[in-house]
Parts: sequence; C-alpha cells; structure tokens
Amino acid sequence: MARMPNMTIDPKKTTFFIQSMIPQIAELTIFYLNLVTVSRLKRNPTVKTEIKLRGFGENIPAGFLTYPVHQAADITIVKGSLVPVGEDQLPMIEQTNEIVRTFNRTYKTDILVEAAPLVSHVSRLPGIDGKEKMSKSLVNAIFLSDPADVIAKKVMQMYTDPDHVRVQDPGKIEGNVVFTYLDIFDEDKAKVAELKEHYQRGGLGDVVVKKYLIEVLNAFLEPIRIRRSELAKDPEQVVKIVLEGTTATRQVAEQTMHEVRKVTHLDY
Amino acid sequence: MARMPNMTIDPKKTTFFIQSMIPQIAELTIFYLNLVTVSRLKRNPTVKTEIKLRGFGENIPAGFLTYPVHQAADITIVKGSLVPVGEDQLPMIEQTNEIVRTFNRTYKTDILVEAAPLVSHVSRLPGIDGKEKMSKSLVNAIFLSDPADVIAKKVMQMYTDPDHVRVQDPGKIEGNVVFTYLDIFDEDKAKVAELKEHYQRGGLGDVVVKKYLIEVLNAFLEPIRIRRSELAKDPEQVVKIVLEGTTATRQVAEQTMHEVRKVTHLDY
Repeated sequence: MARMPNMTIDPKKTTFFIQSMIPQIAELTIFYLNLVTVSRLKRNPTVKTEIKLRGFGENIPAGFLTYPVHQAADITIVKGSLVPVGEDQLPMIEQTNEIVRTFNRTYKTDILVEAAPLVSHVSRLPGIDGKEKMSKSLVNAIFLSDPADVIAKKVMQMYTDPDHVRVQDPGKIEGNVVFTYLDIFDEDKAKVAELKEHYQRGGLGDVVVKKYLIEVLNAFLEPIRIRRSELAKDPEQVVKIVLEGTTATRQVAEQTMHEVRKVTHLDY
Repeated sequence: MARMPNMTIDPKKTTFFIQSMIPQIAELTIFYLNLVTVSRLKRNPTVKTEIKLRGFGENIPAGFLTYPVHQAADITIVKGSLVPVGEDQLPMIEQTNEIVRTFNRTYKTDILVEAAPLVSHVSRLPGIDGKEKMSKSLVNAIFLSDPADVIAKKVMQMYTDPDHVRVQDPGKIEGNVVFTYLDIFDEDKAKVAELKEHYQRGGLGDVVVKKYLIEVLNAFLEPIRIRRSELAKDPEQVVKIVLEGTTATRQVAEQTMHEVRKVTHLDY
C-alpha cells in the first residue's frame, strides 16, 4: 500500500524557536503598527471570520485585531521568503507583503523581503463528524499522537452517507468523510477509484471501507508515532533542540533589527 | 524679583533613557494589547481629539490607536507610581491603571502597580499669538533654549488686548497673554495685581508691561540657559548620562518582564 511521503520535520534542517523568547519580534511589531491602518486590519478576511466565529462584536481585543501585524513580524524578522500556510491564511501573507512594501518604500530600502505562500495540495481536513472544520474544541479531530486503536475508533464513528442504510444500496461519495480521507491519504488512486465505483453502485458496506481507511491512516501515522516515542524518551534533547533554535533565531532576529534600526535612524 | 523655583532636572536623581533601546517596553505592549478592546481605545478622549486634529478619519494608523497601550508599558515597565502629566494626558493614566487592574486580576497577582498623575498647577501655556495651544508647528512657541533677545522679540509680539489702542484707555486682562504669563512666572503676586489694576483702569501701556515680562521670563530662563550651555560644552557627557540611564532602565525593565513572564507562565 502506498502512502504519503514522510513529512517528519528534521531539526537538522529546520530551526524551532519559542516566539515569546524573541523580543525582537515584539519590537518589529511596534514599528509595523505605524504602517497599517485600523480600517485595513478590519478588512482582513481571516480576522473578520474569527471575529464573527468568536462573537467579539465591537469588543475585539486590540491584540486580536493587530495579530496579522504580529505575524508579519514573525515572518519578516527571519526574512522568511516561503511560508507554508493553509488557504485560509493567505490574507495574512498578503498583509505581510503590504507591510514589507510600505516599509521599504517609506525608508527607501530593500532590507525586507516579500514572502510567497506555500499552500498544501490538501485543503483543510473536515472533522470526523463531516463538519467543515476539524477542531479540538469541536471534538471531531484526529491527532498525530492518536494510537492505532483510537484511530480505529474515530474512523468507525466517521460521517459517511446517512442514506446508505443497507449494504446493497448505492452510497454517496460527496461529503462522505471516509472517501475524502482516502482521496488525501491513500496514494493507491486506482484502488480508491474502484472502491468509489463499487460504493456508488451498491454492495459495498461502510465497515469495509472504514477498515481499509484505518489501515491507510495507521500506515501513514506509524513512522510519526515511532519518531514521537523516540523523542519522548529524551525530553531534555527536545528542550535542547528548541533552545538552540531559539538562540540561533535570536541572532538572526537581532541582525534584522539592527538593519531596521539603521534605516529608521534609531541606531544610537 | 521673585521667580519660580529652579526646575532643572538633576541626572543624579533622575534617570534618562531612550525608549527604543528598551525592547522590554515593546514586549510588554504586546502583552497588554490582549487586555484592551479596540472600542475602549477608540473612546480614549486624547486619541479622539488627536484623530480629529490630524484628520485621520477611518485611516488611523494602528500604532496611533494603540499608543495609549504603549504608554501604559512605558509607565509600568519601571513600575512608575507618580507620573507628571498635563491635564490633557489624564486619560492616558486612566487607561494605564485599567490595564494594570485587568492584568493583576487576570493573572491573580499584584506585581503591577497603579500610577497616580502629578498634574502641574500650571495648565497648558497659550501660544504668544493667544491661541490655546503653544506649538512649534504653529510658530507661536517660546523655547527654553531661546536667548534673551529672542525672548524680548517674542514677548513684544505677544497678543494682548486688541481694543487697547491708546495708553490712557482701559485694557482687558482676560485672554491677554502677557498677564497670563505674569500670573504663571512672576512670584511677586502683589506687583502683578497692581499692574492688572492699573492696566484695567487705563494709563498703563502694553510696552511697559511687556518689558516687565521680558525681565521676569529672562530671570526664569537664565539659570536654565547657563546649565544648558555648560552641558553643551561636553556633549559626550550628555550621551554618557543618557546611555547609563538606558542601561540602568533596561535592568529594571528586564526585572519587570521576568515577573510578567513568570505570572503569565511564559518563563521557559
């Protein structure tokens, strides 16, 4: 059975850092706040959606409205040029690049670089209940840390086609979470096409398809679980990786702020 | 002739620092932004007035709207408990104390302290043109650095009573900048009362009163000028004072942030 390429992030290639331990991000955010208007921030689609979702109304915390500015500092403090994001985060990249252009134009410089989004070919996963958004608080999420038996249990609960009552009946594929997941996680496209055809024709039960998805998901998650349990054996090593990454990032961040202070004539 | 007590700030008692060299202020501002709503910031009278004055409309820079939060960090990073302000800045102190209370309540702590305003007995000085606000950009200001002959020239231009044309005519005191300044800068209250009475009765010319005010102002400014010229002889010493103050402040600021990170569980 084919599976997705191993997505493990290698600390030898990737730097991890703790955001709140990089004070330069806060400094840069304060600079950027002067380059963005309140009305521009209110037009940010991600912010608009979240305001509605959380029912803030007029009582938006200022830190929430200005969060895209903070994110722009997160990205540009390390001169990030390629940012892996979900599609719903694209407006954040747009806001970042607007700030970069305004900064460079205002201070007649080119020290800041624009970022390109790296959008996954997989859009947001639906929850196991068929709801559009998978979320911990909606209790419809599958976690990378879930052991095999929990995966099995969650897949068996998955939303399929509520009208597909008897095995011999034709079933629907659209909105059927089991097939959505097979499309994403099973690289054996021919097999998925065959299952879909059989399901729609009738004669293929949910349980059979679900058992197959359990296999696919567990094969995908197994290498992640192994790596995770290896790391869990040595938490000090994990802390070391994060702290080393934080120290390295702080140096890059200070270099960026050095340049920013220079062009803004705040280098005393 | 009596004069105001010497207002020179003594660097042995007072710490000077460069705000942008204290990154902890930016860090604390970012924390505070989550404790204030956008609508609360929009209700700030000082912000409202300035938005109108500068014609921002809906295009307020986010840094402008959130400026009171930044000021709250300026004050609380050194646990300032008494803040000398003009009356128009009182809403800033109010906003600071609201943030202090919200922070202490949210994190069940008492590490932050509320600040009391120290309002000068002198309200804002009017400009020499009689306009309510003295301002460099309105070209109606007197500077502490003005030499004696410039003071003389500016006082001679001062707005008095436009209807007081002939010396023998009665003159008005209200809105007469010369008398406003005498009230503030001349400690010989009996003399000022006598001049006022004479001016209102008629027979006292503007030039006589202005010449007296020139004396009063120059006596007030002379010790400041002397101290200034002493310091100007040794700019390195001034830089040293500011940098030493900045280093000392950074230590205090880091101690405050240490406490803030601890109660917010961001102390890694």
